[in-house]
Amino acid sequence: MDTKKLGRQTVRFADPPAIAGFGSAVGTKERQGPLGPCFDYASQDDTFAQMSWEKAETAMQKQALAFALERAGIRAEQLDYVFAGDLLNQCIATSYSLRAQNVPFFGLYGACSTMAEGLSLGAMLVEGGFASYVAALTSSHFCAAERQYRTPLEYGCQKSPTAQWTATGSGAVVLSRRGKGPFLTHVTTGKVVDKGIRDTSNMGAAMAPAAYATLRAHFQETGRDPSFYDLIVTGDLGSLGKEIVLDFFRRDGVDLSGRYNDCGVMLFDLEKQDVHAGGSGCGCSAVVLTGHLLGEMARGTCRNLLFCGTGALHSPTSAMQGESIPGICHAVAIAAEKGAVS
Amino acid sequence: MDTKKLGRQTVRFADPPAIAGFGSAVGTKERQGPLGPCFDYASQDDTFAQMSWEKAETAMQKQALAFALERAGIRAEQLDYVFAGDLLNQCIATSYSLRAQNVPFFGLYGACSTMAEGLSLGAMLVEGGFASYVAALTSSHFCAAERQYRTPLEYGCQKSPTAQWTATGSGAVVLSRRGKGPFLTHVTTGKVVDKGIRDTSNMGAAMAPAAYATLRAHFQETGRDPSFYDLIVTGDLGSLGKEIVLDFFRRDGVDLSGRYNDCGVMLFDLEKQDVHAGGSGCGCSAVVLTGHLLGEMARGTCRNLLFCGTGALHSPTSAMQGESIPGICHAVAIAAEKGAVS
Repeated sequence: MDTKKLGRQTVRFADPPAIAGFGSAVGTKERQGPLGPCFDYASQDDTFAQMSWEKAETAMQKQALAFALERAGIRAEQLDYVFAGDLLNQCIATSYSLRAQNVPFFGLYGACSTMAEGLSLGAMLVEGGFASYVAALTSSHFCAAERQYRTPLEYGCQKSPTAQWTATGSGAVVLSRRGKGPFLTHVTTGKVVDKGIRDTSNMGAAMAPAAYATLRAHFQETGRDPSFYDLIVTGDLGSLGKEIVLDFFRRDGVDLSGRYNDCGVMLFDLEKQDVHAGGSGCGCSAVVLTGHLLGEMARGTCRNLLFCGTGALHSPTSAMQGESIPGICHAVAIAAEKGAVS
Repeated sequence: MDTKKLGRQTVRFADPPAIAGFGSAVGTKERQGPLGPCFDYASQDDTFAQMSWEKAETAMQKQALAFALERAGIRAEQLDYVFAGDLLNQCIATSYSLRAQNVPFFGLYGACSTMAEGLSLGAMLVEGGFASYVAALTSSHFCAAERQYRTPLEYGCQKSPTAQWTATGSGAVVLSRRGKGPFLTHVTTGKVVDKGIRDTSNMGAAMAPAAYATLRAHFQETGRDPSFYDLIVTGDLGSLGKEIVLDFFRRDGVDLSGRYNDCGVMLFDLEKQDVHAGGSGCGCSAVVLTGHLLGEMARGTCRNLLFCGTGALHSPTSAMQGESIPGICHAVAIAAEKGAVS
């Protein structure tokens, strides 16, 4: 076992990569939510002036990446690699947005864990000496996701109360070998966890066991107590999955309440915005991170953040074949200062 | 620019990771092809004793990984990471095969370039000191791919002569920090290249420009002449795409014929097996590598191999919306000896 590894799942960076830039673009409903004022760009409608929802998603990705590059003060040509993916079949929002860039590209599929997966891999390539600048990029679009995973919006289907609302948004982060932070200090990589949940309208319950498993591994392998973090966020379990995670930890005698939240709960006003159990989709945790959380870190109101992307690795085909929903969760620890690494 | 980087797209490993194990599992048609005797497992039918084509693909992945682990002499629990993906919507063959393993997992989407993408990232994590053992795993299944990308087999649709035949097969490679080789010496990562081809029955033409771009970058950045390699393979352009690549290089005054081939051309007998322009699918280049090429390297008949995975990053949705087909190609250089690194 290499000294960079703390146990099986966690890597600690001796020279933590810096977050040099970040950007976000969102749709109408996200603009109207509690985090609305935080985003770099919020569209007046969800078409983003494109002829299809899929093309709208590509347009959002380009905007988010452009904002992140601008903050980092670099051009796309200076990126060594982009890690990106989305929820659409064959990740087309991503391949079409990167067609416009001139950058070596690694395609990811991690469902809603994609931003955390991209940050994990990007940070390892930067710290390993393979790259000076890497971008992590992802997106989701409510209308494109509905017609692909469920039914086209035109059908007017009703959702069950446990269902989540796919966020319309894209987030991008640029990692750099140098910079004044915040810094990516630890990466805890998830395993596939499947506890047998078959209800595709209850993804929070399907993914919560994966979130719990990765969080436990992170605390054990780093030796950190949850109280080390000012904020621990999952993305995106929604209100129901969040309760399940709190409950799992309560049984271990650990009280996470007060310092734990979920991006799907933070993005929307669950009382007023009719999003049922809250937000979901690759874009949800990506825009909460790039629109809200990294801003909080810049302002100093959050010094240590544990960002945990959670993905449901199923498809409509597997659901129709009676399969349960495998989940995964990747965690990255972000610190305002390098010195905060324990 | 870090000293590990040779130009923009290529990494050279100071301490090249070793290929410690490899495994392959294929279907009936692949068993009947010219490489039939090379594979670790060849099924008598394409169901792999499962109730759906998708589940058959999952079963193949488990077999290929088991063979690779056996050759490497390790258990799945010793893998630090698995990089894996497939062609199915939301990569379900992969998530269900990894549900059975207890391994940190990074999901990829690179279409038919997935094996090369997984090898690239796996090698960087091993050489960067983040892992002792990493597996790269991928698969495709003709029947599952047909109903998803084109039409269900039951419709009996005819294919055009330029179309390729999705291979039924899965390949797995285990990379290790130590071993007697062969060694992964260089990684050249592709950019998205789209020259406007819209015909989804002519993927060879859509992907060939990406293959040409990555090969050119590799030769330029490493300073190597194509004659350095005993064999340069793309996977999978088929017979038409292969001709296009040869033609592009001919215009540059470079004659690749004699040392260049394509996995889609090698896997099947194009005269007798009715596969039109040849094989395709993530599984095609993966099983040609793990069933045939790595065996040739072990026997010493190939000392220096350039393995170039090529992927078409479109979907049926993008095709229906009139979009062209973006391509990508990732190249990895494999040498019998560490000393062969130039």
